Amino acid sequence: MSRPVISFLSDFGPSAPAVCRGVMFSILPEANIIDVNHQVPRYSIRDGSASLSFALPYLPVGVHVGVVDPGVGTDRRPIGIRTKRGDILIGPDNGLLIRAAEKLGGIVEVRILENPELMRPEVSTSFHGRDLFAPMAAHLAGGVPFERVGHEIPAADLVRIRVPEPVIEDGRLRSEIVHIMIYGNVTLAGRPADLEAAIGPLGAARPLRLTFLPTDTERSIVEDTVWGRTFGSVPIGDSVLFADSEGNLCLADNQGDAAKRLGLAVDRPVVVTAR
Amino acid sequence: MSRPVISFLSDFGPSAPAVCRGVMFSILPEANIIDVNHQVPRYSIRDGSASLSFALPYLPVGVHVGVVDPGVGTDRRPIGIRTKRGDILIGPDNGLLIRAAEKLGGIVEVRILENPELMRPEVSTSFHGRDLFAPMAAHLAGGVPFERVGHEIPAADLVRIRVPEPVIEDGRLRSEIVHIMIYGNVTLAGRPADLEAAIGPLGAARPLRLTFLPTDTERSIVEDTVWGRTFGSVPIGDSVLFADSEGNLCLADNQGDAAKRLGLAVDRPVVVTAR
Amino acid sequence: MSRPVISFLSDFGPSAPAVCRGVMFSILPEANIIDVNHQVPRYSIRDGSASLSFALPYLPVGVHVGVVDPGVGTDRRPIGIRTKRGDILIGPDNGLLIRAAEKLGGIVEVRILENPELMRPEVSTSFHGRDLFAPMAAHLAGGVPFERVGHEIPAADLVRIRVPEPVIEDGRLRSEIVHIMIYGNVTLAGRPADLEAAIGPLGAARPLRLTFLPTDTERSIVEDTVWGRTFGSVPIGDSVLFADSEGNLCLADNQGDAAKRLGLAVDRPVVVTAR
Repeated sequence: MSRPVISFLSDFGPSAPAVCRGVMFSILPEANIIDVNHQVPRYSIRDGSASLSFALPYLPVGVHVGVVDPGVGTDRRPIGIRTKRGDILIGPDNGLLIRAAEKLGGIVEVRILENPELMRPEVSTSFHGRDLFAPMAAHLAGGVPFERVGHEIPAADLVRIRVPEPVIEDGRLRSEIVHIMIYGNVTLAGRPADLEAAIGPLGAARPLRLTFLPTDTERSIVEDTVWGRTFGSVPIGDSVLFADSEGNLCLADNQGDAAKRLGLAVDRPVVVTAR
Repeated sequence: MSRPVISFLSDFGPSAPAVCRGVMFSILPEANIIDVNHQVPRYSIRDGSASLSFALPYLPVGVHVGVVDPGVGTDRRPIGIRTKRGDILIGPDNGLLIRAAEKLGGIVEVRILENPELMRPEVSTSFHGRDLFAPMAAHLAGGVPFERVGHEIPAADLVRIRVPEPVIEDGRLRSEIVHIMIYGNVTLAGRPADLEAAIGPLGAARPLRLTFLPTDTERSIVEDTVWGRTFGSVPIGDSVLFADSEGNLCLADNQGDAAKRLGLAVDRPVVVTAR
Repeated sequence: MSRPVISFLSDFGPSAPAVCRGVMFSILPEANIIDVNHQVPRYSIRDGSASLSFALPYLPVGVHVGVVDPGVGTDRRPIGIRTKRGDILIGPDNGLLIRAAEKLGGIVEVRILENPELMRPEVSTSFHGRDLFAPMAAHLAGGVPFERVGHEIPAADLVRIRVPEPVIEDGRLRSEIVHIMIYGNVTLAGRPADLEAAIGPLGAARPLRLTFLPTDTERSIVEDTVWGRTFGSVPIGDSVLFADSEGNLCLADNQGDAAKRLGLAVDRPVVVTAR
C-alpha cells in the first residue's frame, strides 16, 4: 500500500485548508495529508518559516506545501525546492521555505512552478493555495517528475529572509527574539555554547540577566532569571533560561506565559549577562 | 484500496469532533475523513452554509456531514440530500446544506433520517452529531443504499435560509454582507458584472464608495476604496474592492483586517457607488 | 489492509502536534492517527482527563496518547496503561489517563515506559511528546508487545487526581463544577438520580435554584433555572438544568454561554435546591 506524504502549512485559519485538501485528494485519493499548522500569524513569513523548520525534520520524506503569501496575485514567483533528503517543498518565493530546506539536508534543485497542466484550469489571483500549490503538490506526490513543473533557477536567486545570529562579546551575548511558542516561551538566537563563550560555564541555577532593548514605542525590560535544565527546574511561576527541545536558548515561565507577562514580540534585541 | 470520503463540518470547536470521528471509524475503519471546519461561529447556520458551499465543490464525491444545529432536541428533522454529482449531504433540516447541494449539481433526492438501525442504540437529545449523523454517514459511505435511511420528502419541503441578492439600480448597487472570511475580508452579495451593470466598466483603480447603512445600534459607515485585481493591487494597509476566489465582490485591506477596522458583521446592507 | 489506530490529545496548540504525528508516521506509515483535542487548557490535567474520558469510549480500540504534562523534565514517570477493552494509554503519570482507562473497561496492567529502543535516540527534557510518547505509541500500534516498554507496577501506585462526587442531603444536592464545555455548558458532579434522591422527582420545567458558593475572591452566585429535557426546552437566552449527552447534570443557556455569563470556572462548589 502506497500512501505518499503531503504536509501542509498555511496562515489560512480553520476554513480554507479543507478546500486545498479536497483538491489534493481529488488528484491523489491515497495521499496521507499531514497538517503542520494552519494558525501561523497572518502573513508572518518569519513565523511560518520557524514552524516549518521545527516540524519537517521529523516528518517522513514527502512533498511539503507552505503557504504564507502576502504577495499572492503580484509577480512573486511560485517555486519548488528539492532537498538532499529527497523532499520537495512547494510555496511562494519569499523566504518561507529556505530554512526548512536547509534542515532537510540542503537545497539540491530549485524550479519555477509554471506548467499549467499541473494547476487547476483557472488560477485565481488570491487563492494560489487551491489553484496552484495544492494541485502541484498532489501531482508531484503521485509521481510526476520534478522537472515537469517548470524551468530550473539557481538557488542563489531565491528571496531570503534575514536570519538573526547571536554576537559573542566579552561578558555578554547580544541576541534577538526569533520565535514565540504557543506557551509564551521566548526563543532567542543562539545556543548554550554561545552564551558560555560570552560569560563562562552555565551551572545549574546560575543567576542571569536578560535586558530586552528599547524599541520605538517601548522602554527596556530587565528580566532577572536563572539557568536551568528545563522549566520544571524552577518553582511554579518563576522564569528560567534553558536549552529548548531544538537546542536554542529559551526563556520560559514554569506554568506561565513569559512573552505575555513581559510584553515581548519577535525581532526584539536582547542582551544576556551574568549577575 | 477503497477509501470512501466522509467530510465533516460543525460548530463544535476542538473537542467534540473527535467523538464523531471515533464513531465513524468504528463503523468504517477505511474511511478518509476530511475535516471541513469545526470553528463555524456557534449556531450560525449562515456561516456554516457559506463554509460548506465554499469547500465541498473542491472535495471528492462522498458523504458530507454538516452539524450547526440550534434546534437539536426539538422536532427539527434530520435529513439526507442526494446531489446530482453523486454526493450525499447529512445534517439538520434548517437550511445549512442547501446552498452546498446546489453547488454540487443540485438536489436530486431528499430523505428523512429515521432508520434506528443506522443510528447509535441510544440517541441523546443534545448530541445528534455523535448518535445520529456520524453513524448514518459512516453506513452510507460504507455502501448502505440511500433509500434505507428513511422515507422520501419533496425538496420543496426543506427549510431554507434567506439568500441575499444584489439589486442593480441606476448608478448604484444595493447589496449586503454575506460572509466575513478569517482574514477579515468582507464578501458582498453580487459579482463584478452586477456592479458594472449599475455603474459602468470597472477599470483598474477606479474610485468607489461603499456606504454601509445604519443599523439599530450603529450609524452609517462610509469607505472610500478603489477597484483592483487583487488585494495586492494596492499599498499595504489600503483597502480594495475586487472579485474574490469565488468571483464575488469582496472588500479587503492589503495585509489588514477590513471587517475589524470598520466594525462590520454579516447581514449588514451596503450601497456601492462610483466617486 | 491494516490501519492501526493511534489517538492523540495534548495541550500543545496548533504547531507542536505535527512534529509528533511526523514521528509516528515515520515509524508506522500505515497508522490512522485520530486527533482528540490539542486545545486542552495549558497544563490542565483535569480538563485533559475530561476530554479523554469523553472521547475515547467512542474511538476504535487502539493506542491512545495523552500529553498534558506540567512535570516534564522532572522525575514524574512516563507510563502505559492496558485496559480491559484492549487499548493501551500512553502519557505522564499525573492522573491524566486514569478516568478514561476506567471508561474503557478498567485498568488491567500498568508499565513504566523506560526501554530506550522504543524512544528517539536523544530524549529532550521538555518535549517528551516527540521524543518518548510518540515513538512508544507508534511501536506499540505496530505490534511491539506491551511488556517490552518497561517493568510492571501496581495500578495502586499511579498518581491520581481528585474526582468530585455529589453529596445527597435532605432537600439539597452538594456538587461541584467538573467541566466547562466549549459552548459554555457547565457540567456538575452527579446525575439526575442523585438530584431526585435529594429533592424528589424532576418534572418538566420544575423550578430549581443553583447557588455557586463564594470563593476567596468572589461572592455567591444564585442562578434560578428550570429542569428540562434539553437546552432547546427553554426560550432562547434562558438557562436550563438537564442531563447532558454523558448523563451528567449540566447547566446551559439556550444559544448562549452560561459559564461566561455567570463567570464560572471548574472546581467551584454549588448547591442545588428546589424553589
